[in-house]
Amino acid sequence: MLIVKKFGGTSVGDKDRIMNVAKRCAEEYQKGNNVVVVLSAMGKTTDLLLKQAREIHPKAPKRELDMLLTTGEQTSVALMAIALDSMGIPAISLNAFQVAMNTTSVYGNARLKKIDKERIQHELNSRKIVIVTGFQGVNKYGDYTTLGRGGSDTTAVALAAALHADACEIYTDVDGVFTADPRIVKNARKLKEITYDEMLDLATCGAGVLHNRSVEMAKKYGVPLVVRSSLNDHEGTIVKEVTNVEKMLISGVALDDHAARISVMGLKDEPGIAFKLFNTLAKNNINVDIILQSIGRESERTKDISFTVNEEDVETAVSLIEENKERITLKSVTSNCDIAKVSIVGAGMTSNPGVAAKMFEALFNMGININMISTSEIRITVLVKRSDGEKAVNAIHDAFFGETD
Amino acid sequence: MLIVKKFGGTSVGDKDRIMNVAKRCAEEYQKGNNVVVVLSAMGKTTDLLLKQAREIHPKAPKRELDMLLTTGEQTSVALMAIALDSMGIPAISLNAFQVAMNTTSVYGNARLKKIDKERIQHELNSRKIVIVTGFQGVNKYGDYTTLGRGGSDTTAVALAAALHADACEIYTDVDGVFTADPRIVKNARKLKEITYDEMLDLATCGAGVLHNRSVEMAKKYGVPLVVRSSLNDHEGTIVKEVTNVEKMLISGVALDDHAARISVMGLKDEPGIAFKLFNTLAKNNINVDIILQSIGRESERTKDISFTVNEEDVETAVSLIEENKERITLKSVTSNCDIAKVSIVGAGMTSNPGVAAKMFEALFNMGININMISTSEIRITVLVKRSDGEKAVNAIHDAFFGETD
Repeated sequence: MLIVKKFGGTSVGDKDRIMNVAKRCAEEYQKGNNVVVVLSAMGKTTDLLLKQAREIHPKAPKRELDMLLTTGEQTSVALMAIALDSMGIPAISLNAFQVAMNTTSVYGNARLKKIDKERIQHELNSRKIVIVTGFQGVNKYGDYTTLGRGGSDTTAVALAAALHADACEIYTDVDGVFTADPRIVKNARKLKEITYDEMLDLATCGAGVLHNRSVEMAKKYGVPLVVRSSLNDHEGTIVKEVTNVEKMLISGVALDDHAARISVMGLKDEPGIAFKLFNTLAKNNINVDIILQSIGRESERTKDISFTVNEEDVETAVSLIEENKERITLKSVTSNCDIAKVSIVGAGMTSNPGVAAKMFEALFNMGININMISTSEIRITVLVKRSDGEKAVNAIHDAFFGETD
Repeated sequence: MLIVKKFGGTSVGDKDRIMNVAKRCAEEYQKGNNVVVVLSAMGKTTDLLLKQAREIHPKAPKRELDMLLTTGEQTSVALMAIALDSMGIPAISLNAFQVAMNTTSVYGNARLKKIDKERIQHELNSRKIVIVTGFQGVNKYGDYTTLGRGGSDTTAVALAAALHADACEIYTDVDGVFTADPRIVKNARKLKEITYDEMLDLATCGAGVLHNRSVEMAKKYGVPLVVRSSLNDHEGTIVKEVTNVEKMLISGVALDDHAARISVMGLKDEPGIAFKLFNTLAKNNINVDIILQSIGRESERTKDISFTVNEEDVETAVSLIEENKERITLKSVTSNCDIAKVSIVGAGMTSNPGVAAKMFEALFNMGININMISTSEIRITVLVKRSDGEKAVNAIHDAFFGETD
């Protein structure tokens, strides 16, 4: 068996945790399995490096930020190889250059394109544990890139797909995927299984357990994922195509309180306008989440479009739109960061009417006003005031999962 | 003009020093010159990384130590590129993979073999300051190697040679090359010029300003070196083939108090024995410095050989010799770390008899006992007790350079 194991920054945060991870990997290896380990930078390393850079230059070039940040994972993998060697387990660490982890050119937010298996396969064949830097890649210019937030998950899934691994285990500091964030909702329950699509909607909606790109890739290549804790031996949550357990109405409630809403008013009601608007943002690597277009005002022949972005991107997005005012044909643009995105996700809702009504009722009972509503086949998202976010999640969770354990 | 500038760890030890170095490089660039900057890891980074590794595993594999240590210079070069960008100067950082800094395979002590100029030349052509990681290389397996202590000097000289640079400036925390270590000898004077050979002997004898391999390489390729301070604009010392200044009797007194003496007794007096002894050490990358062979005892047909190594290598060297006792044909081996190596160096001594006598007289006057003597054409080295080291350097410096300034 070939197992890919990914450990996040918290799991390798200090010497003892590194030894703990090494021990887990050694146990897997000693069962006779081949093991590939993907690591993030230790603890707060990435944040500290960013702070160092910003103290020198608040708008540091992204190419150099990536050059800086990639040292973080390289430190982790080298220390892990040293830890395994101290246990007598043959191990070797490899960075993005050594694995030829090819990505697109965009610094800070690159996408994986191709992995060269040769070196990894060679090291596995000589029965070494192979430890690979997560989060980083190399672009066509021969420069380091990084994969954006949560990118190490994507590295792990991509390696599992490329190497046809039997399992891809994502280790984190929680026991698995929960019906809601246990730090916010006391009664949150751990899910035994969840489908890729549900996981994807949860990830997109701010449930921080897995990065959505990694779930997309797992779905695309059929890589079975396991999300579990690096701190205990609990079973974790399996993410796969079809779940066997009896369908719950919804599988989880998610909160994203780092979103912001941008409203563009008075757009000409003619074809190609939405394309111009969102293409301008896409070209600048701004991810747009929920999009809502109002019915146009026929008298004025105009329409309004609202959408959400990560709050970090609000300023850039608004000024991009302002700059292209004439071309996009808008009257005005406003933004609002005082919002929280609350979503329910579940494959069960397709066959059960009344799910939306139940969600809205829960919010009404708590006196929470809904700003915007957006739905997909297996997801309902509402925008509320940011200060109402946690209250909303609890109310909805109680409504669907009951107040007692 | 193309100028290579190398800055050591102290010169880039914190944000302010990084900005200071960036400013110096920007000034050079704004004169219209092309600038290549070689950097070491910031301040104590390398030591801290080694400490982290040793806490996990006292005998960490060298391949993984190199993987760990190379993050240090990468951090420096990225931050320097960010600093230059903040001043509006186009700059790009490159690591050993990106420069294709090819070395031999020995981890921890590799030698540079070949540098691929293409990427650097390309970036210089687009008028960028190119910032290269010192100390590190890549071997034929595609793994990081490091060049050993002072390796960044070697990187700078090698780049200057490969790029046919007009000058190679080694910036450090002292004003240049002194007649003795100013921290030990109060009256030490800065030299205006010194020859490669003198510098080489000084470097080998423990004057820490330049790494001897870098001087060897500078001599081989005729790269003119300038050693100067990163903290002020003083002129520094020029290292070149022939010096123009009136020859001083000696150019400096050096102290090495990290040496240890190993004595191998009762070796068979027959051909090939010395080869076997030193080949055993060379194969394990132990650098041997001074070698002295006593006249054999004819009655026993044996001989004794003493030599010095870095004190860090003593244990390994002694056990290697013990393990090969039969093959090397020795009776016993002893070691002594309570020694200091004191040397005088100067091209002037070839034409001036009595230099050795003057040195020995100075030591005699201070009541310092000499353990071992070794001479080359432009160098005389004595071993004394370690506690006598600084006293010996002062006495000799006074004898040759006078007590007052």
